[in-house]
Amino acid sequence: MNRRDFIRNTAVGAGALAVGGYSGSVRSSDDRPNIVIIMADDLGLGDLSCFGSTYIKTPNLDAMAAGGVKLTNFYSCAPVCSPSRSGVMTGQYPIRNGVITNFGPSRQLYSPFAPLVNKMGHGLSLSEITLAEALKPLGYATACVGKWHLGDYKRYLPTNRGFDQYFGIPYSNDMEPVVLLRDEEVIERPVDQDTLTQRYTREALEFIEKNQNQPFLLYYPQTFPHVPLHASGEFRDKSAGGRYGDTIEELEWSVGQILESLDRLGIAENTFVFFTSDNGPWYQGSPGGHRDRKMSVFEGGFRVPGIARWPGVLQEGLVSDAPAVNVDLFPTSVKLAGGTLPQDRVIDGQDLMPVLKGGATAHEAIYYCYHDNLQAVRKGKWKYHRRHKHWTTHTPERPRGPMLFNIIDDSEESYDLINLYPDKAAELEGIMKEWEKTLPKGPRRFRI
Amino acid sequence: MNRRDFIRNTAVGAGALAVGGYSGSVRSSDDRPNIVIIMADDLGLGDLSCFGSTYIKTPNLDAMAAGGVKLTNFYSCAPVCSPSRSGVMTGQYPIRNGVITNFGPSRQLYSPFAPLVNKMGHGLSLSEITLAEALKPLGYATACVGKWHLGDYKRYLPTNRGFDQYFGIPYSNDMEPVVLLRDEEVIERPVDQDTLTQRYTREALEFIEKNQNQPFLLYYPQTFPHVPLHASGEFRDKSAGGRYGDTIEELEWSVGQILESLDRLGIAENTFVFFTSDNGPWYQGSPGGHRDRKMSVFEGGFRVPGIARWPGVLQEGLVSDAPAVNVDLFPTSVKLAGGTLPQDRVIDGQDLMPVLKGGATAHEAIYYCYHDNLQAVRKGKWKYHRRHKHWTTHTPERPRGPMLFNIIDDSEESYDLINLYPDKAAELEGIMKEWEKTLPKGPRRFRI
Repeated sequence: MNRRDFIRNTAVGAGALAVGGYSGSVRSSDDRPNIVIIMADDLGLGDLSCFGSTYIKTPNLDAMAAGGVKLTNFYSCAPVCSPSRSGVMTGQYPIRNGVITNFGPSRQLYSPFAPLVNKMGHGLSLSEITLAEALKPLGYATACVGKWHLGDYKRYLPTNRGFDQYFGIPYSNDMEPVVLLRDEEVIERPVDQDTLTQRYTREALEFIEKNQNQPFLLYYPQTFPHVPLHASGEFRDKSAGGRYGDTIEELEWSVGQILESLDRLGIAENTFVFFTSDNGPWYQGSPGGHRDRKMSVFEGGFRVPGIARWPGVLQEGLVSDAPAVNVDLFPTSVKLAGGTLPQDRVIDGQDLMPVLKGGATAHEAIYYCYHDNLQAVRKGKWKYHRRHKHWTTHTPERPRGPMLFNIIDDSEESYDLINLYPDKAAELEGIMKEWEKTLPKGPRRFRI
Repeated sequence: MNRRDFIRNTAVGAGALAVGGYSGSVRSSDDRPNIVIIMADDLGLGDLSCFGSTYIKTPNLDAMAAGGVKLTNFYSCAPVCSPSRSGVMTGQYPIRNGVITNFGPSRQLYSPFAPLVNKMGHGLSLSEITLAEALKPLGYATACVGKWHLGDYKRYLPTNRGFDQYFGIPYSNDMEPVVLLRDEEVIERPVDQDTLTQRYTREALEFIEKNQNQPFLLYYPQTFPHVPLHASGEFRDKSAGGRYGDTIEELEWSVGQILESLDRLGIAENTFVFFTSDNGPWYQGSPGGHRDRKMSVFEGGFRVPGIARWPGVLQEGLVSDAPAVNVDLFPTSVKLAGGTLPQDRVIDGQDLMPVLKGGATAHEAIYYCYHDNLQAVRKGKWKYHRRHKHWTTHTPERPRGPMLFNIIDDSEESYDLINLYPDKAAELEGIMKEWEKTLPKGPRRFRI
């Protein structure tokens, strides 16, 4: 079953739903939840009050965690932007879906990453199924607000990948030209970034209001706190965490506006909301006591906050240390929407709901890939970095493994214990080898 | 007064001392303390139990701290080996004495750092005055045991820089050829690194025993835990911190042997002992919650443990958070030895004794240089990174400043507060500019 067939079959399978119409009347007999996924950009694990920050005040996210579930061992599937987003959109690790590094603006094909970019084309392969493509035929209204970063050629833009509408900067806010798109049209160039979060928020609220009577998917990948840092007047120079804190405090105000809107419209109890970040912190921000930052295979590159909210369904204030990954959002959402997963491909994600209800992780292991290399794996408290010829980190030491860390007790990954537990290292190497057998053969090329 | 004059004058100034003779009989009327400086290589701030490690057991260093003074804001003058050692030996920041990067073995002049190496010659300039050269004319017996790393041509070796004797690897243990020197002769090639700490220890104990009746300087810059990691049979695979922990546990056993020897010989109360590390941790080891590691201008590159012991003189168990730097060991030692500082040059170090007795820091500011760039400064809780075109760190983000961090509350240097405190940043930039006026003009070339 290829992608087109999947989408057609899923739509038919949705049965009673008025596919194509998506009118409000559908909702009356439809208790499938709305899905809201909010993902900050380069926000660190330690940057929220509810994750220990003393510098940045995040009352809305704190309340979201207190009223829902906080995941303290939540992972991005990649330590950089495009790959991480590709995982949320497809439920697959980037090494499987082919988005192994960042896309630059299409005019920048000759970047230092050109060989990699050319290897993988210039957008998330059209043969992949996005979360929006999975939910739209099930009767979901779909919107993307924010940083897409999965291709800026027309055919790769959100409105051609299952989203009814799009509003945002199609890539990182430090990439030239910084343009604002509505659907597929450039409406502002350069973008006034100071007012961006305010406008993203308005767009999100309008979408929710318009679709309050039918199931919807709102995917809100924020532009900040990725540099350059911008905040609107009301938030500028207000945070004790400096300009970086300003952007996060405005971003989390934006989350608050969305949650408040769901409450006001009376649909909070029918809406699954998830907040996370795309990877570890970059120039600024706290990795929460972990080693390194964005672009590293150490925990600091991959560990991000995870907060879920679904009043009446999730237990208030639950804190789970079960490892989970942002690729889980795809199968979780598809299942909540009553759909079935594509059968012609491996989906790495696992249904998050058991973990969100206090259960154990469904992952045999957590995999750490960078570019097209599988470099490390975590199982339980053990993290094993295999020997490889690539970066573990960009710092000069570039330790190359093999290394074995107890990342529960040694969150800084400071003490390689491989001499004491060689069998554990061998076991984890074996798990990596088995998993690699499931990956596409040959170079993971752009598959249109 | 040039170096030769200084040494001649100092010797004459020492007056009653039998300069040239240094016989045991001098000691009876001489209560000047022995000085023992032990410096680990690439050991992290968080690698000792007394600095919070739960992985590595360091009972001897813990006892040393409990019976003496622990400095929790102690700095290396550089984030790499040779520059840090040059600071201990001269009392000057490397940007002043010219040792702005590591020396490779002399046969490796065409390394990636060749331009820098050539700029600074191939050893600590002979125009500089080493600690041994300052103490020897005062009647001190002087020995260097361990990793010298201030030049491996004969004229730069310890025995030509004020030390009566030398035993050790003249540079890092990962540099080929790995040779063991006694004085100026290669006695082993390649070195059996497994037994190195045992042999260093024996050498140190013999020196102490031989010179117990006269003032002595024992400078013991250890080879470990710099990679490759080696430990002798008794310590191998014993530490919960893995092989890295093994080397530290053997190293700290070695410290224990020295302290025990001083006790046994009844000279502990007449001996000032200081333990530290040359820079932050590298591949492994804990930076103790600070950002980055060796080779970074963030705290993780510069913060090291500082422990002083002098029974009967220092208060037992004192913990001081007053900032101090390893360049302080030069003036502290010279003063304890009854000498006077060279008057023809700037000595950056300050007498440590007031801090070790619970007083405030004598430093107006702490300076962070990397290569020949002054990049950051700390005063009180504020650390300012100026805007520069060089590395702050080797990680890909390489934030270049200007940035202002409160490094007391934000030990990870995660939140740049310059937008909130621009006046503080300007003040610190001013302090840097003033200090730079005291530096040698022009390129800091090798001055033979």
